[in-house]
Amino acid sequence: METLTSDKQQILQDNLDYTLFSWSKQAGLNPISAERAEGVYVYDRDGKRYLDFSSQLMNVNIGHGNQKVTEAVAAQMQELSYVYPGMITKARGDLGKKLAEITSPNLTKAFFTLGGAESIENAIKLARVYTGRHKIVSLYLSFHGASYGAISAGGDPRKLAVDSQAMPGVVHVENPYFYRCPWYSTTPEECAERAAAHMERVIQYEGPGNVAAILLEGESGTSGCIKYPPTYWQRVRAICDKYGILLIADEVMSGFGRTGKWFGSDHHGVKVDMMAMAKGITAGYLPLGAVMVDEQIAHSFDDKPLPLGLTYSAHPVSCAAAVAVLDIYEEENLIENAAEMGRYIEARVAEMAARHPSIGDFRNTGLLGCLELVKNRETKEPMAPWNAAPHQMDVMNQVAAKIRELGMYTFVRWNYIFIAPPLTITKEEVDEGLDIISQAIRIADEHVH
Amino acid sequence: METLTSDKQQILQDNLDYTLFSWSKQAGLNPISAERAEGVYVYDRDGKRYLDFSSQLMNVNIGHGNQKVTEAVAAQMQELSYVYPGMITKARGDLGKKLAEITSPNLTKAFFTLGGAESIENAIKLARVYTGRHKIVSLYLSFHGASYGAISAGGDPRKLAVDSQAMPGVVHVENPYFYRCPWYSTTPEECAERAAAHMERVIQYEGPGNVAAILLEGESGTSGCIKYPPTYWQRVRAICDKYGILLIADEVMSGFGRTGKWFGSDHHGVKVDMMAMAKGITAGYLPLGAVMVDEQIAHSFDDKPLPLGLTYSAHPVSCAAAVAVLDIYEEENLIENAAEMGRYIEARVAEMAARHPSIGDFRNTGLLGCLELVKNRETKEPMAPWNAAPHQMDVMNQVAAKIRELGMYTFVRWNYIFIAPPLTITKEEVDEGLDIISQAIRIADEHVH
Repeated sequence: METLTSDKQQILQDNLDYTLFSWSKQAGLNPISAERAEGVYVYDRDGKRYLDFSSQLMNVNIGHGNQKVTEAVAAQMQELSYVYPGMITKARGDLGKKLAEITSPNLTKAFFTLGGAESIENAIKLARVYTGRHKIVSLYLSFHGASYGAISAGGDPRKLAVDSQAMPGVVHVENPYFYRCPWYSTTPEECAERAAAHMERVIQYEGPGNVAAILLEGESGTSGCIKYPPTYWQRVRAICDKYGILLIADEVMSGFGRTGKWFGSDHHGVKVDMMAMAKGITAGYLPLGAVMVDEQIAHSFDDKPLPLGLTYSAHPVSCAAAVAVLDIYEEENLIENAAEMGRYIEARVAEMAARHPSIGDFRNTGLLGCLELVKNRETKEPMAPWNAAPHQMDVMNQVAAKIRELGMYTFVRWNYIFIAPPLTITKEEVDEGLDIISQAIRIADEHVH
Repeated sequence: METLTSDKQQILQDNLDYTLFSWSKQAGLNPISAERAEGVYVYDRDGKRYLDFSSQLMNVNIGHGNQKVTEAVAAQMQELSYVYPGMITKARGDLGKKLAEITSPNLTKAFFTLGGAESIENAIKLARVYTGRHKIVSLYLSFHGASYGAISAGGDPRKLAVDSQAMPGVVHVENPYFYRCPWYSTTPEECAERAAAHMERVIQYEGPGNVAAILLEGESGTSGCIKYPPTYWQRVRAICDKYGILLIADEVMSGFGRTGKWFGSDHHGVKVDMMAMAKGITAGYLPLGAVMVDEQIAHSFDDKPLPLGLTYSAHPVSCAAAVAVLDIYEEENLIENAAEMGRYIEARVAEMAARHPSIGDFRNTGLLGCLELVKNRETKEPMAPWNAAPHQMDVMNQVAAKIRELGMYTFVRWNYIFIAPPLTITKEEVDEGLDIISQAIRIADEHVH
């Protein structure tokens, strides 16, 4: 299926002339012109097929083009497209109930938003109002969205261009990043223990009575899937309990089966007080986010106004899409498949590492994985440094270009290559993807010294 | 069309048990259970019809249930529901081009968001990065959204519960509110002149070299449709030009025909440097927002990264819905109808004022209007004060309950009743609505002294 050349050119030109592209220089862009998508593949207007190995932005968990969602959306729009969030709709109630079922029993009520940043901001607002405290503790290597509050909560360098005006009150601590452990630990458990001790010291310096919440990604995402070492979550929960601090899980990227369980934090058996959601809740088919709120916190707003709102909270069409998407996870056993394919990928990458000296580390949970490329396995010198400047990206840009040339779209950042395909992926499709990555990182292998 | 009683009860209970309602106490809610909507009417699950006299939240501009939008959405979803914002889609280019056509020639490029708050935040970020300055000047009686940055930019009391942690750097000035002029002016022009002088003094006190932008609603919305007096916009533009400050119009509520022109600021013949949009861009059918950016500002990011992004920027399905909605405005001559119906409402409310002593003021532009109820026309004592506590809302709550009983949904806030129906409304439907309001405000008339 190919578009006429003149139409192709017009579509490209209109996009470049009239729209701005995120996080990029606007000159010299060479974007893929997407026409259609199905399963794990996106097709451009020349008919070229791209294996989507990062589920776009780790959100198209059910794969592309599932027409059950289209049907649910059209059916909702035939009845009712929009009412304001003070009204009741069936889709809203159905979705709230379903979210309460798949999260832990203390999380009883959903506040609906449109995306991850808004979910985080609303969770922070509730934490502050509920505790009467104002500080939020989060990790340096983390991303929680790009609105002023959310980008301040994260530690990602995407904040630096707007930093000076960001929301005050966030205290960042170092990550339990065992591969590059800030505390020189020799086992993951030691890394967890030292990371928690660091966090607790910082909280004492900041005044525990000022700290409303600790905010953690359910599993680390775009910062490099810095997989939490065993006992870390339990230690953080213990700090929360000791000082009366709330624990907020950002499950925006790690939720909805991405890690082989419903939520990333489910791997640690720890109760959270609020859970921020987005992405997989609709698998990107329509915008939606949510905050799941602990029963006690929710009830504290029975007799005082909930200080939250947005025009599109509980948008009926987005809610209807989410209800359909959540059914698909279960009907198609996608979460079980994510766990199984995750194990398969881990085994295959272990084989690849034997052939590719540039593979420094591979951290993975279910289908949320990241290859970290290095110039040297002993020194762990990264193939491109954190927050690399353009001239430091030469090798990785060549790797990324080869990946695209070979028919794959995935998220390449600094020295990271993400492996986070749709949860529908088969072994054959995994093989196809890993073979492409294997070919592309030969370029990086040549820069190992 | 009635739902079974058991189903109705289940839908109600699921909504109340599992979801949180914006800006409200969660106990004692009595929400409308919406089943379907068509034209200017929303129907509940008992088959009761509500005339939607505020287009829900001033966003359902094309009226409810227009199936052309459903068709556009379904067609897009059959091809492609989602790709990340680094890819090109036809819907994105078409929408960007259309927005460039309907805004002034200096606004050439769209950055897409999901709603008004995000549009405002991204406009503020661009203004700060572009100017290298950090302060934003806005009006106390204004609302710009509820995310941390946006709620700080507004002056609305909805911010007060989360105020202490809001984004720094916003300076608020008083409004050119002629009906209650802060500067005791005797004509609207005098009010405009004094308001601008006040704004300029504050800017001098704050240091003009620190001010990145002045942010104004295109036309005042939920603060009471505090219609800008003649010359105000020109005077603000002159201040911007004098000090190298950018002018940002928040057209989230006042845009897309709401005021009888494409945008509220179009009434003043003044160039703006950025325009924040949402609501009417899709008439609420799906979530979408945008910032239209001046050519020079856009080009300043040709060779440095645009420091903005969100997962659902330029969501293909939302863009497709917007393209369909913008066509409907033109095909159905909705903007002309808004202007005509606005004049009709103004004439009819003038008649009503003769019969209803509680009508203190009516401010309207197209179909963005607000009745201000007072206890006494001489003293202008409001029927309920600004940011009224619950016990101060007795009379207005009775008015609101009567409006609902008589089969109308509209936005009642403090002593304000909003008149902002869909742009599809007919004279007969206007008459129906004003008759309901007329009956309801008899309750207020009895409290005039």
